[in-house]
Amino acid sequence: MSRHVISVLVDNQSGVLSRVAGLFSRRGYNIDSLSVGETENSQFSRMTIVVRGDDSTLEQIKKQLNKLIDVIKVVSLTSESSVYRELVLVKVAADDKTRAAINDIVDIFRAKIIDIAPKSLTIEITGDEPKIQAFIDLMKPYGIIEMARTGLTALQRGDLSITNNNNN
Amino acid sequence: MSRHVISVLVDNQSGVLSRVAGLFSRRGYNIDSLSVGETENSQFSRMTIVVRGDDSTLEQIKKQLNKLIDVIKVVSLTSESSVYRELVLVKVAADDKTRAAINDIVDIFRAKIIDIAPKSLTIEITGDEPKIQAFIDLMKPYGIIEMARTGLTALQRGDLSITNNNNN
Repeated sequence: MSRHVISVLVDNQSGVLSRVAGLFSRRGYNIDSLSVGETENSQFSRMTIVVRGDDSTLEQIKKQLNKLIDVIKVVSLTSESSVYRELVLVKVAADDKTRAAINDIVDIFRAKIIDIAPKSLTIEITGDEPKIQAFIDLMKPYGIIEMARTGLTALQRGDLSITNNNNN
Repeated sequence: MSRHVISVLVDNQSGVLSRVAGLFSRRGYNIDSLSVGETENSQFSRMTIVVRGDDSTLEQIKKQLNKLIDVIKVVSLTSESSVYRELVLVKVAADDKTRAAINDIVDIFRAKIIDIAPKSLTIEITGDEPKIQAFIDLMKPYGIIEMARTGLTALQRGDLSITNNNNN
């Protein structure tokens, strides 16, 4: 079961998220992450959905998505032809003894400390999944208090936009 | 109508996103953005939802969310007590004449160029909403080809986690 990243251009209507989520739920497709936000045109939103499944499942999902009202365009974005990024906020336990060591790791990953409290640091990190996972693994021994992930977002490389992409 | 950021801890079940999205859709609550990803504990996911509405709408939404199956905890995260961040990928038209000027703006915003093509640059930027909006406004004159936003994610400041937060 490989991981697929699907980018979906939709009308910015209340209800469209519900229809998309309902489709995945009814058919038992498992969503690893989903993020949705406005695009360069406020009429449209863009959803980035990460799902696991084989190639025929992916084809089914794209076919079903294309049938939904308010769905304008569906493309899968492969790791070779796209840039993948996620933002993660990690609150990690820290005291006078561990703060410097955590800060060193933060620097190496080009992450940022965005809040400091007596017993914790809150860190912002962005990257593709392997980088994020490596950072989380290094923070675990200190004690992760909580974490919030945006889920992956992605754009295809090169000059074209989703509306010119024929990989659908 | 002010903007509210709601953080929702849920069981990591297929179906929960559909129930949450369905609730917002049925009741006509308008979602500005939604992001969902795993937490420090893979049993749970965390959704960050940005909605517009008055305070009584916010109270209604929280009450309704708390009634849903698989919803563990609902808190609203105010801008004073929380850190808000979003990641945006922007593909902007660029040629030999404009690339240097765009790069200067990228540096000032501590953004990153993550892909370069003959007629475009793809830029990664993170920040709170005013910073992101200022950057997008500066890119518009060059021509935004496409854009993908993760939607806001947020954590409360300080040492506590969502499960110790009494602001629900």
